[in-house]
Amino acid sequence: MIKAALTVLLILVAMSSTFGKYIPKTGKRSVQTLSRGWGDQLIWAQTYEEALYWSRSRNKPLMVLFHLDDCPHSQALKKVFSEDVELQRTLDEDFIILNLVYETTDKHLSPDGKYVPRIIFVDPAMTVRADINGRYSNRMYAYETTDLKLLKSNMQKAKKLLKSEL
Amino acid sequence: MIKAALTVLLILVAMSSTFGKYIPKTGKRSVQTLSRGWGDQLIWAQTYEEALYWSRSRNKPLMVLFHLDDCPHSQALKKVFSEDVELQRTLDEDFIILNLVYETTDKHLSPDGKYVPRIIFVDPAMTVRADINGRYSNRMYAYETTDLKLLKSNMQKAKKLLKSEL
Repeated sequence: MIKAALTVLLILVAMSSTFGKYIPKTGKRSVQTLSRGWGDQLIWAQTYEEALYWSRSRNKPLMVLFHLDDCPHSQALKKVFSEDVELQRTLDEDFIILNLVYETTDKHLSPDGKYVPRIIFVDPAMTVRADINGRYSNRMYAYETTDLKLLKSNMQKAKKLLKSEL
Repeated sequence: MIKAALTVLLILVAMSSTFGKYIPKTGKRSVQTLSRGWGDQLIWAQTYEEALYWSRSRNKPLMVLFHLDDCPHSQALKKVFSEDVELQRTLDEDFIILNLVYETTDKHLSPDGKYVPRIIFVDPAMTVRADINGRYSNRMYAYETTDLKLLKSNMQKAKKLLKSEL
């Protein structure tokens, strides 16, 4: 009797998991996320238009992060970036954030070329903060894993000038 | 002894789950996904630029879907859309797909205005297929839950003209 009930239960579970659901030929996929591993607990904008709108309406600076899945520098930065609790908290509370694996049509987001990883700050008045940059003169908006402290001080800069402008 | 071991284990588990992870003040959030419930097993482009690039390079038509979380028509369409196995399979195998909750700066994606839900097809040559529309003359690219058959036939249209153009 218990065996029969278990069998029925198993069949029901099997049915409920396939009924009305599309499974690709290559097998079930993991769901794609907007964070892409850069901070699963943060709320990421999907597009630049959305991010600009949020930035303006909430009066918070925007951080745009360009990266690539097959770029080892991006992946290394992602690891330290996502594991830094202080950085993640500041982003969550004081910034609008967007990460992109494709360039936008807006040239202002590539002041000195298109490369990854690249971090650009934009103020709520929609001005790209080309003055906030990393330590490399040939790729001014690039950050390495050892530049996290500089990145955090740049985030404070993005917040401060904003306040003094008000 | 077993109790002590269990306690140590519990402490370790508690530590591992908080160490190096940022938890927002308002509590742990569920991770945002690119599908937004329109097909969790499908591979969605993040931006229009990315979608156009995929469409051109893979020679597949693009479906752009505008919707809103707080629009009951969008939510109703999402339910039938995500549960239709045939539609999901066709999208997965033959289309590049993008769903957006914010408008893009490209006016071609709103041939008769900005409203949701709205479905626009774009061919791999980057031409918006304004000729492929739903059944409402005032909102030509809107679809209701009862229009799923028409939507599927429109998808076939998007695929067919593509082939005859080659």
